[in-house]
Amino acid sequence: MKYVKKLVCIDCGEEYDAEPDKYLCSKCDNEGILEVEYDYNKIKEDWSIEDLKANEDLSIWRYLPLLPVKEETPRPSLRVGWTPVYDSDVLAQELGLEEIYLKDDGLNPTGSLKDRASAMAVVKAQEAGATTVACSSTGNAASSLAGNVASMGGKMDAVIFVPERAPMGKVTQLLIYGAEVVSVQGSYEEAYYLSDGAIKKWDWYNRNAGINPYLVEGKKTVSLELAEQLNFEMPDWLVFSVGDGCTIAGAWKGLYDLKQIGFIDKIPKLIGVQAEGCAPITKSFRTEKPLETTSEDTLADSIAVGKPRNYKKALNAIRESDGTMVNVSDEEILDMMVTVGQTTGVFGEPAGVTGFAGLKKLVDQGVVAKEDKVAAVITGNGLKDITNGKKAAGEPLEVPPNLELLEKTYKRGDRF
Amino acid sequence: MKYVKKLVCIDCGEEYDAEPDKYLCSKCDNEGILEVEYDYNKIKEDWSIEDLKANEDLSIWRYLPLLPVKEETPRPSLRVGWTPVYDSDVLAQELGLEEIYLKDDGLNPTGSLKDRASAMAVVKAQEAGATTVACSSTGNAASSLAGNVASMGGKMDAVIFVPERAPMGKVTQLLIYGAEVVSVQGSYEEAYYLSDGAIKKWDWYNRNAGINPYLVEGKKTVSLELAEQLNFEMPDWLVFSVGDGCTIAGAWKGLYDLKQIGFIDKIPKLIGVQAEGCAPITKSFRTEKPLETTSEDTLADSIAVGKPRNYKKALNAIRESDGTMVNVSDEEILDMMVTVGQTTGVFGEPAGVTGFAGLKKLVDQGVVAKEDKVAAVITGNGLKDITNGKKAAGEPLEVPPNLELLEKTYKRGDRF
Ligand SMILES: [Zn+2]
Ligand SMILES: [Zn+2]
Repeated sequence: MKYVKKLVCIDCGEEYDAEPDKYLCSKCDNEGILEVEYDYNKIKEDWSIEDLKANEDLSIWRYLPLLPVKEETPRPSLRVGWTPVYDSDVLAQELGLEEIYLKDDGLNPTGSLKDRASAMAVVKAQEAGATTVACSSTGNAASSLAGNVASMGGKMDAVIFVPERAPMGKVTQLLIYGAEVVSVQGSYEEAYYLSDGAIKKWDWYNRNAGINPYLVEGKKTVSLELAEQLNFEMPDWLVFSVGDGCTIAGAWKGLYDLKQIGFIDKIPKLIGVQAEGCAPITKSFRTEKPLETTSEDTLADSIAVGKPRNYKKALNAIRESDGTMVNVSDEEILDMMVTVGQTTGVFGEPAGVTGFAGLKKLVDQGVVAKEDKVAAVITGNGLKDITNGKKAAGEPLEVPPNLELLEKTYKRGDRF
Repeated sequence: MKYVKKLVCIDCGEEYDAEPDKYLCSKCDNEGILEVEYDYNKIKEDWSIEDLKANEDLSIWRYLPLLPVKEETPRPSLRVGWTPVYDSDVLAQELGLEEIYLKDDGLNPTGSLKDRASAMAVVKAQEAGATTVACSSTGNAASSLAGNVASMGGKMDAVIFVPERAPMGKVTQLLIYGAEVVSVQGSYEEAYYLSDGAIKKWDWYNRNAGINPYLVEGKKTVSLELAEQLNFEMPDWLVFSVGDGCTIAGAWKGLYDLKQIGFIDKIPKLIGVQAEGCAPITKSFRTEKPLETTSEDTLADSIAVGKPRNYKKALNAIRESDGTMVNVSDEEILDMMVTVGQTTGVFGEPAGVTGFAGLKKLVDQGVVAKEDKVAAVITGNGLKDITNGKKAAGEPLEVPPNLELLEKTYKRGDRF
């Protein structure tokens, strides 16, 4: 916590001490979202790109000077972060670009970018003296919390509230990790309120991303890493799918931090992509009106959030970076799962590839130019949502074990 | 290929030039398995532990002097290898040990250890001038081949033969990667023969692990890595689940190589674990009689191989290292999925945790002592096989969105 100055309300500017369980701005009736402020000058004095390069810890903790944790707090043992970045000509071509960088965050230990936030939550919970951490989640926040808690080896417990529509893969993962799973017969919204009540009642640590200002600080490591992996030469655009808004807000915060300490010169323009059936943030971005809750009609369950709690931070991220937002249909998402898979060997879940689908649309519309340098992040592993994977991919060819029949079947289909 | 001397038949000792498409010993009627021989003295002269430490390529290709590939052949872009090693006290306790190292190879890009072999196959196929690579597989060999081929960006094709029992997750993954998938209405055995015929008929590159001597060389990187990650201080025992025998054979080969070049002093005793319902190699190990084909009655589909083609190499690995073999029931496998998940935050597929189940049994039997240092490898990601994951994990608690009802439900179950 050497470099953390305070928590600041993004609405009213009120400042608070950075206590691990300070969640929201009291002055704003516990509605104002807080942001962690660092002493950038001090960080600049103490920390250089060379220091970073010499650090052999290939996980999110390599960025310790920019993280709001005590150095001595025990960390989950899972290796979170340092996911690979690929440069694919063929995918670029498919998107209408000359170059694209793909960062595969589905290779985090529990299969999604949210491991970054959950690892942070496990550390902050201990600093708050809590042994139980709870959240409500469509899935990835939950599984990442359950996995990171499990990796503490019995020292902590996770209680997870999921809406009943959560895919089987994600729920199974929670149970394997030994979390207490509460499947709420209702929407994400209802699961959220139930978790909120239970957290207050039983005094658990709160890992709900729209509430807890430290989680964004975990998520920001995705852009810290990307910047380092691209040798601090930032692309023109950086693309994310958007659900509750925390991920893109985190990505922006990481870039902002890096600019403040002089590691990068420019912040890429951020592109936020939502699913057509659940796009409240895009609507607020376009109309410049306060957010209206929407229904949650998309198969991209990880971004199906009708009442996103962190939309202000998300909108700030887009606007401050001079970026934009766009929506895509479920069909475009499914198509993109196959496009990304076939061209790069990366299998992303629907919400994981949604950013790429939006990018394609913006290239088609001329918003992103062919020669622009672009990076986009796969936020979750496709193995988490096989049902939709199957919709995207179709069925294998079924044949009896007979070479002649195989040849005939294939010749009919004109293959090989 | 600077350090490769030749291919040697493990049955008759006949030597062959290391051509990329030389698969089996012609002298032994194309039954004898070949092994790659290196010029260890030359490697020792050119390559040190310090050279290795200075290598920033954190993938299997960091071990290039010990790999049978030309330096200039294009490699799949996926980042294969350098999977994390965890040291878990709580898991050790559960197993009856003082210490256990777990290497999570489910974090390879397509979710299994087999990425190591498939990346190798893609390189060797190109050296053989082939653009189509084919295999038959229960799943992981297939998905890893499909993913690694896809990452070549359209330069190559994969044709995959799967038995109809392959889990949906694995087949979906193949289709997303754009592979040509042939679902064979029959056993693994029948899928294998059909692939064999098709490969010869259409002159594809053969990625069947029991046939192709280079694949074991890819797999051996798992023990090269483990050794490096443990600072070349080897454990007493190293544990793997065993299906067709290639993985444990590969692990041994890596250890043998390291000992020959003086990077390690001792080779750990290898433990091979099979599922009770499909344990032909354990039977041959115990009876010292030639292998007899068995049925394939286990839910651990990745090791359900009734007629393993590489059993001789596997048995050599166990015997040369003074190791042992053991079988476990499906129930023990499912229990171990939960034990590993809850204590470490690692979700392994059934075959992925089978080694740990066998280890527990051997500790109970006193074969492995409490104070022995042991490492074991999770060979595949649990997200690949959710159906069995669900069997292991049970169901979540379903509640209506109401705090009072939640409290009542929980009090009944005496939780929190
Ligand atoms: Zn305020
Ligand atoms: Zn021979």
